Amino acid sequence: MNPVPTPTLRQAFQELTLATRGRGLREFTGEVAAWLAANQCRHGLLTLHLRHTSASLLIQENADPDVRRDLDAFFARLVRDGDPLFSHTAEGDDDMPAHIRTALTTVNLSIPVRDGRLTLGTWQGIYLWEHRTRPHTRRVAMHFLGE
Amino acid sequence: MNPVPTPTLRQAFQELTLATRGRGLREFTGEVAAWLAANQCRHGLLTLHLRHTSASLLIQENADPDVRRDLDAFFARLVRDGDPLFSHTAEGDDDMPAHIRTALTTVNLSIPVRDGRLTLGTWQGIYLWEHRTRPHTRRVAMHFLGE
Amino acid sequence: MNPVPTPTLRQAFQELTLATRGRGLREFTGEVAAWLAANQCRHGLLTLHLRHTSASLLIQENADPDVRRDLDAFFARLVRDGDPLFSHTAEGDDDMPAHIRTALTTVNLSIPVRDGRLTLGTWQGIYLWEHRTRPHTRRVAMHFLGE
Repeated sequence: MNPVPTPTLRQAFQELTLATRGRGLREFTGEVAAWLAANQCRHGLLTLHLRHTSASLLIQENADPDVRRDLDAFFARLVRDGDPLFSHTAEGDDDMPAHIRTALTTVNLSIPVRDGRLTLGTWQGIYLWEHRTRPHTRRVAMHFLGE
Repeated sequence: MNPVPTPTLRQAFQELTLATRGRGLREFTGEVAAWLAANQCRHGLLTLHLRHTSASLLIQENADPDVRRDLDAFFARLVRDGDPLFSHTAEGDDDMPAHIRTALTTVNLSIPVRDGRLTLGTWQGIYLWEHRTRPHTRRVAMHFLGE
Repeated sequence: MNPVPTPTLRQAFQELTLATRGRGLREFTGEVAAWLAANQCRHGLLTLHLRHTSASLLIQENADPDVRRDLDAFFARLVRDGDPLFSHTAEGDDDMPAHIRTALTTVNLSIPVRDGRLTLGTWQGIYLWEHRTRPHTRRVAMHFLGE
């Protein structure tokens, strides 16, 4: 399946808005796949960019929900809310930990699209990881470049 | 070397299969470079996406092998196999740590290609980081978009 | 703002050189935005790749400088200079920690560009994170693909 003749390359953009219920992982693979389908994206590159500094994008296992619980438990122990090390405390005990959890993960994902499908593995899902304890509205810039 | 006139943009896709020998780093810069050369990719963007949730992609130093050993030793101490914090234990003591090590690193890489070469630095190599203790077969989606 | 008709896709490349003053975060959003403007990049994808293994690229809060101070303090405690775990010590006590800090973060960023602007959130800035204690000269490969 090597060199693909490329008749007409084009772009599509969309901003996706996602509500979170506080700290934890929320899958949105379905929303991304639906947008690709609605735009008839067949072959190309999908980029997701989260426009925030206290939440992350993550590709992780979408089978056993214990995985998400353990991920969050590990990060909560690694980066303690209210750690006296932190000076930036005006926005709450969970704010600086949220920035650090974001730095330890990522806010950008790049996933090739082939035959109209994301090239995710069988067990991979796309997640928004809310790091603040209270609910937030988060925005993800979606971009497709391809045919 | 600013705006580059772009005669015909095109895409290439390939799935690369890599065998691992258990936990540790395995370089595959050569395989990626060979694929770019075989497809006559000159200027553009290379994206790599690892289709698994218990291994990572990493760009790291390719000179002293001690660096890879120390990286793995640090991660093994940071995320302990069999940590009683974890509920997701059915697939083995090293499974949940593998998911966390993946979350702490990444499964996507984006590297510009210029004059037929990856724009890697002198000491940078592209690695597959196996986080499970037993050998696995891992698949990487490779995508090139450019001329 | 869905499917965008794409008249002529093109590419631009540039290597950006940034001087650091030792460990810490240095914002360079302005340099990236200026390059996009100079090349009249309107809609597309920006990729940044840092060509080093002991420094990172990071998108983080650009408001309170305490956030950057706390980020660096947390990483300095998590990955201790001179930790006896490390074998790779010939280049200094801060060298292996710099490689690990790089692995825990990233050297690639992908940001969609829309109407000539990076789709960063209100509080997001693009940073080079120097992990070595002494000043260095760092090179970032910038690539734009779009119209």
